[in-house]
Amino acid sequence: MNLDVARNLDAKDPLASFRERFDVPANTRYFDGNSLGVLSHAVRDRVNQTLNNEWGADLITSWNKHGWIDLPLRVGDKIGALIGAAPGQTLCVDSISVNLFKALCAVLQLQPDRQEILSTEDNFPTDLYMVQGLNALLGSRCRLRLVPENELVDAINTDTAAVLVTEVNFRTGRKLDIAALTTQAHQQGALMIVDLAHSAGAMPVQVDQDGVDFAVGCTYKYLNAGPGAPAFIYVASRWLAHLQQQPLQPLYGWLGHADPFAFSPTYQGADTIRQFMVGTSPIVSLAAVDAAVDIFSATNMQVIRDKSLALGDFWLQCMDDAQLLQEMSCISPQQKEERGSQISFTHPEAYAICQALIDRGVVADFRAPQYLRIGFAPLYNTFTEVAEAVNILADIITTQAHLAPQYQTRNTVT
Amino acid sequence: MNLDVARNLDAKDPLASFRERFDVPANTRYFDGNSLGVLSHAVRDRVNQTLNNEWGADLITSWNKHGWIDLPLRVGDKIGALIGAAPGQTLCVDSISVNLFKALCAVLQLQPDRQEILSTEDNFPTDLYMVQGLNALLGSRCRLRLVPENELVDAINTDTAAVLVTEVNFRTGRKLDIAALTTQAHQQGALMIVDLAHSAGAMPVQVDQDGVDFAVGCTYKYLNAGPGAPAFIYVASRWLAHLQQQPLQPLYGWLGHADPFAFSPTYQGADTIRQFMVGTSPIVSLAAVDAAVDIFSATNMQVIRDKSLALGDFWLQCMDDAQLLQEMSCISPQQKEERGSQISFTHPEAYAICQALIDRGVVADFRAPQYLRIGFAPLYNTFTEVAEAVNILADIITTQAHLAPQYQTRNTVT
Repeated sequence: MNLDVARNLDAKDPLASFRERFDVPANTRYFDGNSLGVLSHAVRDRVNQTLNNEWGADLITSWNKHGWIDLPLRVGDKIGALIGAAPGQTLCVDSISVNLFKALCAVLQLQPDRQEILSTEDNFPTDLYMVQGLNALLGSRCRLRLVPENELVDAINTDTAAVLVTEVNFRTGRKLDIAALTTQAHQQGALMIVDLAHSAGAMPVQVDQDGVDFAVGCTYKYLNAGPGAPAFIYVASRWLAHLQQQPLQPLYGWLGHADPFAFSPTYQGADTIRQFMVGTSPIVSLAAVDAAVDIFSATNMQVIRDKSLALGDFWLQCMDDAQLLQEMSCISPQQKEERGSQISFTHPEAYAICQALIDRGVVADFRAPQYLRIGFAPLYNTFTEVAEAVNILADIITTQAHLAPQYQTRNTVT
Repeated sequence: MNLDVARNLDAKDPLASFRERFDVPANTRYFDGNSLGVLSHAVRDRVNQTLNNEWGADLITSWNKHGWIDLPLRVGDKIGALIGAAPGQTLCVDSISVNLFKALCAVLQLQPDRQEILSTEDNFPTDLYMVQGLNALLGSRCRLRLVPENELVDAINTDTAAVLVTEVNFRTGRKLDIAALTTQAHQQGALMIVDLAHSAGAMPVQVDQDGVDFAVGCTYKYLNAGPGAPAFIYVASRWLAHLQQQPLQPLYGWLGHADPFAFSPTYQGADTIRQFMVGTSPIVSLAAVDAAVDIFSATNMQVIRDKSLALGDFWLQCMDDAQLLQEMSCISPQQKEERGSQISFTHPEAYAICQALIDRGVVADFRAPQYLRIGFAPLYNTFTEVAEAVNILADIITTQAHLAPQYQTRNTVT
């Protein structure tokens, strides 16, 4: 019985004690941490501390007294530690989209003779859109070229200003080899921009070691910092050195000024990662990131990765045992090393199946046109949940429960 | 005695009952609501509801179930009601700086034959910096020209793409006549961009009626939504109509797409204010704005304005009675109708005086090079606080308490 196997795996899980730090709702098997992570007690406490003991009690003096002014830098460095970035290169601020705009502008400035941003056809849309927007603004100075994922390496050429990829594909869960891609980009004189949305907090990342030039990522998936919590940007120190000559990104906000409180009418960019700060950060949401990231200091990313892959393997094994893999074929890589922390399945009724699962307490998500995504968050998911969830999935498929009319009407967000 | 006069004024104050909705710290007379507003019970409750009953309990389904996906629009419309904007033109999202970037790009697109953004030398620096950044990106396509405030009208000409002003000067508290300026800008074919950072929540604003083209503003000052809470942007409906042809701003984020959840690789902008959305908003901080703005629905902006001006007049009267106005001259306009909701004073030791005030429970703020700013937040400030604060100021000046060494060392933020 898979439930017995699961209980045995849970008993040996080195991360088992982390689950109690999170508020996983009762009767919910939550496999959507790749979309929105779960609330932890530390985050709830920290938000209330920021509300009551900082803002509420100390008001404006909190900018100094509680260090709000440097919070984007401090939280940035903590995130940096999880993605293999030495201090001073990572900032927690704005959204992925806005941070990507900064990175793209920096690339164009560093590569004055190259116009092309090369990406994959199925990269996450906002990443592609931001390049399209820059093209609308700058014309031929910035062009987007899209190729299939498996043609990416051969497509890099001497027009390529930067290769822009998301390490883990949001639909298929395929994980790219960032070290190899970066080497190949650099061999052609191209820079490397990596979106770590589905990597940070889910697996080891080594931006410094791999030679990545710019990275962006969010904090509301595997980092569990809450809906829309501020994103991050990483800029390799060799490019930050250019800030002594001029700013690298054009969103000249006052907090990116070398001396914001001089209130000079002329912008002079800070010569550190601070130049990538723009306006005032939402401190309550940023404090949530701070607390959420601290949880990771009690373990390490390899332990998390090992459990993530084990959860995925076990999910597939349970589906295989229930003969579900014929009904819903897996579109994620067979080799687990090539997967991120999610496994995706294709089915013509994937939307309805997802709704039926949610109705029975198994939260997965749907991505158009017909993919069911199962995300694994090793800090709180258990093997027992996996066995139970697949049993429920098997029951839905067997009884065709998903064909009920209420599961066919689509909501805005799924 | 001014304290008796103050108590009498408080007794007649139609907004007196609002103070108990806020957590004004004990023994604190807070006159810095023009920098960071005070925490209200409604905001605290709403943040906890969002944490526990929404994110915590319902996780990813909250995007539909609790309407997170449209929250920037709903909160935007509520802010719109406070600034005289009919629904569908205001969005609560990003920072002022990023929103200003969008507005500036829209102006350049709508004014293809004009390159100049005209502003005042002492506009808030981030507003000027954003234009300078756009100049760094676009070259001669976007130029910033700065003139003294009193020469602004005469400086508008047929090269002016837009006039960019902050309604209330952050140093002097001088309030511009937006209706007149907008008419004068339009007569020259220029558009009008207004920064309402020191207006929203402090006084009546009529963006629709005045014909303003674009406006931005923050929510953490007089709107009391918390440090760095999301900002807002207003785009007049006559410009939103252009979205049917093409996007107006180049930060093509996925939430500004006509159909975000189609995950199309090609951007097609929404043809509503939604096109000005970029990435995912920090929902916890955004929910705080929602609750903070709701408080205003129990009164109206004229009542708030009347009390704001009365508080300012009373402050000046108290200072006059204490013969402080010779020592610290007022740099704000003499005519109260020309003032925002702050009064500023100049003194060579303004920094030290500000620190000494804070030490005695009177929170004001300092702006370089030598200004002491006193902000009035009519929802929670009282006339008694004014009388007490000026008494404390008088004592500091008389005893020269501010010359103590501990008040001379400058912190980062003041």
